[in-house]
Order: sequence, then structure tokens, then C-alpha cells
Amino acid sequence: MWQLYHFSLCPFSRKTRLALSEKGVAYELRREYPWDGSEEFYSRNPAGRTPVLHDPARDVTLIDSQAICEFFEETIDKTPLILGNAAQRAEIRRLVALFDQNFFADVTHPLMHEKMKKRLILRAAPDSGMLRNAMRLAHEHLEYIDWLVGNRRWLAGSQMSLADFAAAAQISVADYLGGIDWGGHDEAHGWYRVMKSRPSFRPLLTEKMEGLPPPRHYGDVNS
Amino acid sequence: MWQLYHFSLCPFSRKTRLALSEKGVAYELRREYPWDGSEEFYSRNPAGRTPVLHDPARDVTLIDSQAICEFFEETIDKTPLILGNAAQRAEIRRLVALFDQNFFADVTHPLMHEKMKKRLILRAAPDSGMLRNAMRLAHEHLEYIDWLVGNRRWLAGSQMSLADFAAAAQISVADYLGGIDWGGHDEAHGWYRVMKSRPSFRPLLTEKMEGLPPPRHYGDVNS
Repeated sequence: MWQLYHFSLCPFSRKTRLALSEKGVAYELRREYPWDGSEEFYSRNPAGRTPVLHDPARDVTLIDSQAICEFFEETIDKTPLILGNAAQRAEIRRLVALFDQNFFADVTHPLMHEKMKKRLILRAAPDSGMLRNAMRLAHEHLEYIDWLVGNRRWLAGSQMSLADFAAAAQISVADYLGGIDWGGHDEAHGWYRVMKSRPSFRPLLTEKMEGLPPPRHYGDVNS
Repeated sequence: MWQLYHFSLCPFSRKTRLALSEKGVAYELRREYPWDGSEEFYSRNPAGRTPVLHDPARDVTLIDSQAICEFFEETIDKTPLILGNAAQRAEIRRLVALFDQNFFADVTHPLMHEKMKKRLILRAAPDSGMLRNAMRLAHEHLEYIDWLVGNRRWLAGSQMSLADFAAAAQISVADYLGGIDWGGHDEAHGWYRVMKSRPSFRPLLTEKMEGLPPPRHYGDVNS
């Protein structure tokens, strides 16, 4: 069986878990911490980044969330996530990159640094200016999701795609860290509630990080 | 004909130009500056990032270098760049992400900030500590290329792939900015000379940025 080296609050691990579950790929979880990876993990990926997917039986190692998602898109027909014609597929990949790169740099990464790393590792207080900035940028991204959902139903078009899972993975980590305020974003909020209620999403919503409890609404699919 | 909105020293624009040329896709260049994009450019990509590829005849707009490369991989058979079986294609995509993300963050982006943006826009002196750190990290990446080329011939395996072009695009920008020292990296240097001598690479090597001349060896395919 595939072994997924992941970190619970890594948005790229989450994107990968969602895609694997949607496509019906079985895997077992190996928990790694970005600040304290196991030797085994580093031997699989010297770059030290989650997620890494390893199949001991065939000695195959897959690294990078997008490379992993493309691999299963090519090898498993169930639930296509990069779908449609070439231009539609390009639109899905554009949005995946937007959330993987821009949303992560603007929102998820600063929140992880200020509210997780400083609390658990650096034992320092978060920088309120950095947090305000991340939440301001989160609003801009949520506004764009409002627009996309209002005009297209799903983020990349009329069908659910990897773009929805990439975005929901980032948002779920930001929400765990108290960085998402849905006020004024009814369309985006409605879309996220639907994402949250998918069976693939449930395991993520019940995981807790020691010493860092999520806000009460985090795991509630109705709020 | 496709119109490519690009910036000469943007490594992602370069990766896209190399892939388009290798696949025989005709396009015309529209020059944009990251600090002063045209209205037309922002109307095509509000995120303001190069490269953007637009086809006025069909009103198709493609954004994000990887989404663009995947699009032409799916629609043009000539010169496959993401090739082999699914695991080999995953290895190509892993390395593309490594250079697009890690090499860029470690080396290309700091060099662009310190040696280009500070000189042309901010009118400030580069930070020598930042430059030293970028060049130190460049050595680590070149060491990895030495290893890959020594063990596989091309970066991702026995055949040239998008991984080679993604890496060469980053290195060419870093080299333009004086950040590449080939000392001790004979394998990587030999590989890069071969990349430089490809017809797809030539136009990049003759372009100069006003007020920012490249080092003498930059455009010489023999050095």
C-alpha cells in the first residue's frame, strides 16, 4: 500500500489526501513534522518537504503535491480532477497554481509561521501586523472565490476539479489557525461548506494538533 | 498567432519560451516589466505575473508557466517534454517544481531583487550577505545537477525533458546576474553548455536588459 509522509497542517499534504481519497486510492499515513522529520523521511526526500508518497512493494517514490496529483490523474480513471478539454485543464492548473503559490505565500504560510511555528517551536508572540496583513489578503482571495463560484458554480468551471481541492486545502489550514473570516463572503462560504461535507474532507476536520486547538467552528460542516 | 506577455529576466517566461520553441509553436513577444505592466497585460492577468499566453483569434488566455507547458504537451505531439511512463513523468514534474520553486526562492529571486530591482528601481546597493547566501545555495543546487547528470545523462533520466529547460531557464537568469560560479561543477557546466547551444536557447542569450549588462561569458555557448 502507498505510504503518505504528511504533516497535518501542511496544505499540500491536505490537497494530496483529498485527491487520493476522491480517486479511491488507499494509503496509510506517516506523520512528519516540518521542524523534525524522521531519517526515513529525509532518505525519501532530502529536500525535507511534505507530501511524499512511497510504495515499498514497487520502490516508487513520488514527491511534490502537483506531481502526485498528475500521476494519479494519469493512472486512475475514477473521479477525474483535471478534466475537460486542454483549455479547461489549463484553467484548472492555473487556479491550482494560484492557490498553491499565491494563497500559500499571502495567507497560509504567514499564518503557519505566526500562529503555529512561533507558538510551538519559537515560543514567541505572533506579530499582529503580519496577521492583519495575512487576513486582509485572505479577504481578497475570498472575494475572488465569491466571483468564481458566482459565475461558474465550481472554481474552474461547471464541474468540481482539483482547483476546488487545492483552494479548500489552503483555506482549511488557514481556518484551523483562525485566519478566515467569512463575513461578506456568502458565495465562498457556501462553496466551502459543500467541500467540507465531502467524505474525503472528514478525516482532516477531526485531526487536532497537540497544543494548538482549532476554533470551535472549524470542524462543523454546517458553519 | 499566440502572443506571449513576458519579461526578459523572468525565469518562468524563459522556461515557457524554450518549451514553445522546442515544440515548434509560433508566438510573438510582448514585453512587460514586473514593476510596470501594461493595462492590456493586467486585463489578461490581474495577478500581474508573467508569462501569459493569449490567442486573440480564439480568445484563449493561458496563465502560469506550468499550465502553459502542460497545455502544449497535451495538444502538440512534436518533441515530448513530459515523457515516459507515469512514474518518469512524475519525476520530471518533481524536478520542474524543484527548480521553479526551490531554486527560484533560494537563488534566482534574491539575485533579481539584489542585482536587478535594487539597481534599476530602488536605486540602492545590493546586500552582500544576501548575495553570498544566494551563491552558496546556488552551489548546492549545482552539486545536485552534477549528481543527476553524472547518474542519468539528463536531469530526469535518459532523455531530455522539461526538467532540463526549467533548470536551464533559472540558471540562465542567475548567470545573467553574475550569480553562477561553475568552479567544481564540471558535469553541470557541461550539461548547461549543451542546453545553451540549442537553437531554442539562442534568442535568450542575445537579449540585453538596458542598464544591466550581463557578464562577458553569459552569451558564449563555449564558456
